[in-house]
Amino acid sequence: MGENLELLDAYWRAANYLSVGQIYLLDNPLLREPLRAEHVKPRLLGHWGTTPGLTLLYAHLNRAIRARDLNALFVTGPGHGGPGLVANAYLEGTYSEVYPSVTEDVDGMRALFRQFSFPGGIPSHVAPETPGSIHEGGELGYALLHAYGAVFDNPDLLAVCVVGDGEAETGPLAASWHSNKWLDPRRDGVVLPVLHLNGYKIANPTVLARIPTDELAALLRGYGYAPRFVTGDQPMAVHEELALTLDEVLDEIAAIKADPPTRRPTWPMIVLRTPKGWTGPKEVDGTRVEGTFRAHQVPLAGTRTDAGHRAQLEEWMRGYEPETLFDETGRLRPELRALAPEGTRRMSANPHTNGGLVLRDLAMPDFRRHAVTVDRPGVESSPATTVLGAFLRDVVARNADRFRLFGPDEVASNRLQAVFDVTDRAWNAAVEEGDDHLAPGGRVLEVLSEHLCQGWLEGYLLTGRHGLFTSYEAFIHIVDSMLNQHAKWLKTTRAIPWRAPIASLNYLLSSHVWRQDHNGFSHQDPGFLDHVINKKAEITRVYLPPDTNTLLSTMDHCLRSRHYVNVVVAGKQPQLSYLSMDEAVAHCTRGLGIWDWAGTTDGDPDVVLACCGDVPTLETLAAARLLREHCPDLKVRVVNVVDLMRLQPDREHPHGLSDDEFDALFTPDKPVVLAFHGYPWLIHRLTYSRRNHHNLHVRGYKEEGTTTTPFDMVMLNDLDRFHLVMDVIDRVPSLGARAAPLRQRMVDARLAARAYTREHGEDDPAIAQWTWQ
Amino acid sequence: MGENLELLDAYWRAANYLSVGQIYLLDNPLLREPLRAEHVKPRLLGHWGTTPGLTLLYAHLNRAIRARDLNALFVTGPGHGGPGLVANAYLEGTYSEVYPSVTEDVDGMRALFRQFSFPGGIPSHVAPETPGSIHEGGELGYALLHAYGAVFDNPDLLAVCVVGDGEAETGPLAASWHSNKWLDPRRDGVVLPVLHLNGYKIANPTVLARIPTDELAALLRGYGYAPRFVTGDQPMAVHEELALTLDEVLDEIAAIKADPPTRRPTWPMIVLRTPKGWTGPKEVDGTRVEGTFRAHQVPLAGTRTDAGHRAQLEEWMRGYEPETLFDETGRLRPELRALAPEGTRRMSANPHTNGGLVLRDLAMPDFRRHAVTVDRPGVESSPATTVLGAFLRDVVARNADRFRLFGPDEVASNRLQAVFDVTDRAWNAAVEEGDDHLAPGGRVLEVLSEHLCQGWLEGYLLTGRHGLFTSYEAFIHIVDSMLNQHAKWLKTTRAIPWRAPIASLNYLLSSHVWRQDHNGFSHQDPGFLDHVINKKAEITRVYLPPDTNTLLSTMDHCLRSRHYVNVVVAGKQPQLSYLSMDEAVAHCTRGLGIWDWAGTTDGDPDVVLACCGDVPTLETLAAARLLREHCPDLKVRVVNVVDLMRLQPDREHPHGLSDDEFDALFTPDKPVVLAFHGYPWLIHRLTYSRRNHHNLHVRGYKEEGTTTTPFDMVMLNDLDRFHLVMDVIDRVPSLGARAAPLRQRMVDARLAARAYTREHGEDDPAIAQWTWQ
Repeated sequence: MGENLELLDAYWRAANYLSVGQIYLLDNPLLREPLRAEHVKPRLLGHWGTTPGLTLLYAHLNRAIRARDLNALFVTGPGHGGPGLVANAYLEGTYSEVYPSVTEDVDGMRALFRQFSFPGGIPSHVAPETPGSIHEGGELGYALLHAYGAVFDNPDLLAVCVVGDGEAETGPLAASWHSNKWLDPRRDGVVLPVLHLNGYKIANPTVLARIPTDELAALLRGYGYAPRFVTGDQPMAVHEELALTLDEVLDEIAAIKADPPTRRPTWPMIVLRTPKGWTGPKEVDGTRVEGTFRAHQVPLAGTRTDAGHRAQLEEWMRGYEPETLFDETGRLRPELRALAPEGTRRMSANPHTNGGLVLRDLAMPDFRRHAVTVDRPGVESSPATTVLGAFLRDVVARNADRFRLFGPDEVASNRLQAVFDVTDRAWNAAVEEGDDHLAPGGRVLEVLSEHLCQGWLEGYLLTGRHGLFTSYEAFIHIVDSMLNQHAKWLKTTRAIPWRAPIASLNYLLSSHVWRQDHNGFSHQDPGFLDHVINKKAEITRVYLPPDTNTLLSTMDHCLRSRHYVNVVVAGKQPQLSYLSMDEAVAHCTRGLGIWDWAGTTDGDPDVVLACCGDVPTLETLAAARLLREHCPDLKVRVVNVVDLMRLQPDREHPHGLSDDEFDALFTPDKPVVLAFHGYPWLIHRLTYSRRNHHNLHVRGYKEEGTTTTPFDMVMLNDLDRFHLVMDVIDRVPSLGARAAPLRQRMVDARLAARAYTREHGEDDPAIAQWTWQ
Repeated sequence: MGENLELLDAYWRAANYLSVGQIYLLDNPLLREPLRAEHVKPRLLGHWGTTPGLTLLYAHLNRAIRARDLNALFVTGPGHGGPGLVANAYLEGTYSEVYPSVTEDVDGMRALFRQFSFPGGIPSHVAPETPGSIHEGGELGYALLHAYGAVFDNPDLLAVCVVGDGEAETGPLAASWHSNKWLDPRRDGVVLPVLHLNGYKIANPTVLARIPTDELAALLRGYGYAPRFVTGDQPMAVHEELALTLDEVLDEIAAIKADPPTRRPTWPMIVLRTPKGWTGPKEVDGTRVEGTFRAHQVPLAGTRTDAGHRAQLEEWMRGYEPETLFDETGRLRPELRALAPEGTRRMSANPHTNGGLVLRDLAMPDFRRHAVTVDRPGVESSPATTVLGAFLRDVVARNADRFRLFGPDEVASNRLQAVFDVTDRAWNAAVEEGDDHLAPGGRVLEVLSEHLCQGWLEGYLLTGRHGLFTSYEAFIHIVDSMLNQHAKWLKTTRAIPWRAPIASLNYLLSSHVWRQDHNGFSHQDPGFLDHVINKKAEITRVYLPPDTNTLLSTMDHCLRSRHYVNVVVAGKQPQLSYLSMDEAVAHCTRGLGIWDWAGTTDGDPDVVLACCGDVPTLETLAAARLLREHCPDLKVRVVNVVDLMRLQPDREHPHGLSDDEFDALFTPDKPVVLAFHGYPWLIHRLTYSRRNHHNLHVRGYKEEGTTTTPFDMVMLNDLDRFHLVMDVIDRVPSLGARAAPLRQRMVDARLAARAYTREHGEDDPAIAQWTWQ
């Protein structure tokens, strides 16, 4: 193996050279003249510390890919080491293919260096712009999850996942080692974790590098892996040990895959312990740098102004012997280029890392087949998510290789259990009598961690598949920051021509704020909507279907869509149905509309009652009915909103209504009482520039609640039918003398409802069983 | 031990009886008459499954507390088992002390049962209302963190922390086992984790219950614990084994505490494997329930209407032999009552669980001593967080027993390193040469996990101490959901008279959206502010000090405050100083104000330039200067906002301005151009009801950015000085013919700035070094 490893070492040096060049150089890329101040970037931005470990692994994996014709991708947990991955994509030619201006010659190398962390150039981390990446390396903790998501239903795929020892301290990463309990060796691919112990974060050592090796080994065995340790700081010795270890590990994986066991195997993994900032400056200004946290970012900070630092940089870069690595034209020498895999075997060009390329449409069943019959609006009840479950069952059945459901132990709790007619929960740990639908390869992934659900789904989507995440509404906030990163990925990739669109990230938020009868205040938070719409309008979509048929129509739309974040909020309790399937499709297509049957005028109204969300819709209709009864001459218009973003102006969101359209629904000058599922000020944030905004009065969740009845919950937040009537009374002066007694009646009705509830422990049946009839 | 364990078993049965009673009964609490339908609650809400494990441990801990005079508290990870903890607080008398209407007799027991999960009653989970709890049991994952937070700087305290095997799947919990690396056996107390393997979540088995025992043991050893296993489903056998094990474990802990080692010891822990829903119905309607996921909530669902279910409930409850547990009056029999500890040794009455009781004020140094001299506004620069670091150093030095800093490896990165003059980073793993300020007992807790920082700090605050969490602004979203729960706790406890106020949860968000030169788009998100202000107004405070002296004044205020969530946003880069310390204190006291020196009128303005945040303030002042130069007769008023909530109406937030006050600053009718640190629509959400809102034009972060220069970042988001001038031009018609050429000049200035940056890789010094001079 000796000569090969010499070459491999040269390849590694080439990648390191290109990495350092990206961080430091504006010009003189091959150091063909002495390094001068003007060759150096004025602002030095990037992370050297983690880079040599990444490039080391990449070079060794290339060897293995060529030797074994592996279908492999590389997930860079320590994504701050962007230069290393960009360097490798460049060395194997992919970079120049997707960015033709960065050619494989001196000029191209100069462009490659200059663009890095430079205004108008590329980000410093492994980013959507980096060929071969499915993993934004900015926020830490999700590398293993993305890797597992990538290999689900990709039986031939090997995801090599570098886990940084800093990242390993995060919660999501610590939990995600257990992902192997959901992996099916028969239908899924393999994740090979490489825990890279370079020992340091920004200013601190890392925990896993500073516990005894036997504790670390126990921890990893406890996570279900067989760890192998590769340790060293002498390149050739490490090359040898790593090459041997990688071969053993890949042999082991091949053996498992050749005859997949029915029980979970103990998958191998590697612990690689090498110095942080390896091959960089050992000391700077008398302080040790290599092998310490001081190598984290830019080891030599003064290279533009300090001749000593500059000389040290030049010495460092020349130490890689660039003249032996690149030919006269600046191109990687052929004997080194021959070390890289070819075509789609290059990790930077693996089509799974550009998921839109391998994305196949879902085979969609007809959602109309699941329609509930609605002869008259608001009379019959149906359980929306239960019916949706039957539709999803058909989606699962037709797409067994490309669609999965993800949820924190709540797929049945959220009433989607029909899916278990055709599939199981994925599970590859022990099974006992009485277990309910557990089996390797199940299409439903349940784990009590929203982080794991989100991360797996992201990895699955980014590699060209489809999915749905169902969650308790309140706890989806657990993944706020993950959603940020995915939304940023979607936004950025829209502008990268070689990145093909992927399937949307679909959320079904059920067990929502208004129905936490069991769980109370801690389970009440509708604010994910506020969070999501802070992301780019071209990415985010929010739907609040009021009944079963509208939920079916909405979900069908979301599952067919591309490159969005779709958030659907729908309760799991039986509720009134309002729209036939044809009406529902029309209503969802418009996104909002007047419900003539619920109002008392088809002309100009005195007041608009608007609603968005299932519970608010019920209360609004009940309020409309009360007004019809008590003020029959009051001209009431009822507007229901399914697509929340319709409320925003068309200049702000692609779904937004024009101001004229908005006025046509909500009037330019009449009072509007809007009952909203979430925090009320979200509506104001969407509508503040509308002409009639000063007349808009919003009710919603104002952070009041406990373990109580459904009607008590809406009363606690003044969203109940009686209060909505009071809101109308307070805003319609034309009611005149009738106003005061009616208002008192509503006050009394609220008191009576509360008294009933507190006495009986349940809502007054006259309220709970109210229908439009 | 035999007789004692018989009594202990009776105590356990009493707690179980009271737990079942809470879930099911409205009346007939001691079953002194046959159980009838009307005795049963109409809505059965609660979680039985986890409860018997909790009550078992509680009873055994009582024995140990009495035997050893332990100062112990109980952290209930599976907080859904609220009935069990309420039952125990009632059995030991605490409940009746804090809720006098729930007496220790039949009537009190009836009230205890009725109130549980009942309208107007108490929540179903372990909640702020539960005596002895510092841990809302609704959202899972934070139990160990709260336990560790509680014992920091409480050397005599033992926090027994039950970790549910469901909860153990979450990311934060998986990472938090490692908390022992930050524990100092000399100055801190002890956490005794009890991993309760009851095997199931809502519908699934749990991972840790379904991996081989040797894997589980390896995992826990890898986390640094010595696990002891107690397994069984026969009560007396389990009692015996648990009692012995607990004694051994407590002996071991006592031995460590008696002679604390300088190196991290291997702390003991317990793995308790007992059936879910133990002692409940074995089967219901022919399906196995005890020992399965079906015992999770309410095992018998039809007890109100189904006589068979009701008979089974009665049999179940009578099986605990209530007549042998409670006397004629309904009071716990004295021989059982004698098993509970007394006074503050009762875990339900431990003063550390009502942190406000043991809270001592911080000894505050004079922040004015750290003031930077400001002779003229906007001329000299100073690094705000560096100066703050010196103030915090003095806070640390004076409060070595009650103040800690928490951060994800960023205390130095955020320039607070002066604190290391007087303390270290807490660290009890291996130390190597070259490490920077690592030692057991350090006041700074750094770990690359925002979850751990937040959870530790919460536990520390809830037990009556003070702290500050510094974080990158973008990644504080990682703890959005944790913040929700803490804010809900604060809101709820304000209304609980026996809960004393605690110190505020203080955040310093630095490395903010506008200065991600190194890290780019993934590190840009100012939306935590949006998230925080969705919580109750009486709890949330948000400050954006524009310079060093205002930051000092703000932080002094926050550290002295009680029972708030204070969010302070401040950049770590050197920036212009505007206010002397006296001016800063006055400005911060008002929360916002006119900066006369920056405007061109002390009368009615033609336009208001408002700003909030350090970078927006700089750009606004530069814009004001441009206007002064180019339109000397334009009457400009400059308003700076420190306290964001001043913008909201006083009817919405206690800090809010009245409408008249608002108009006095922002005029009733003149254009206002407001440059904001965060997402612009947040300002609209706060001000939509203001008279002049239609004239308010807000610039802020609109999700555009990459790795680039500071000025390029503000340009990408149209927040730059030139664009602000354009915004003024577009809104002030009186500029007349001057408008068009000035606008063109600004467009050209933007183009020139961009061209300079792209050519040189840094901002034009004329822009980067701009001062007010």
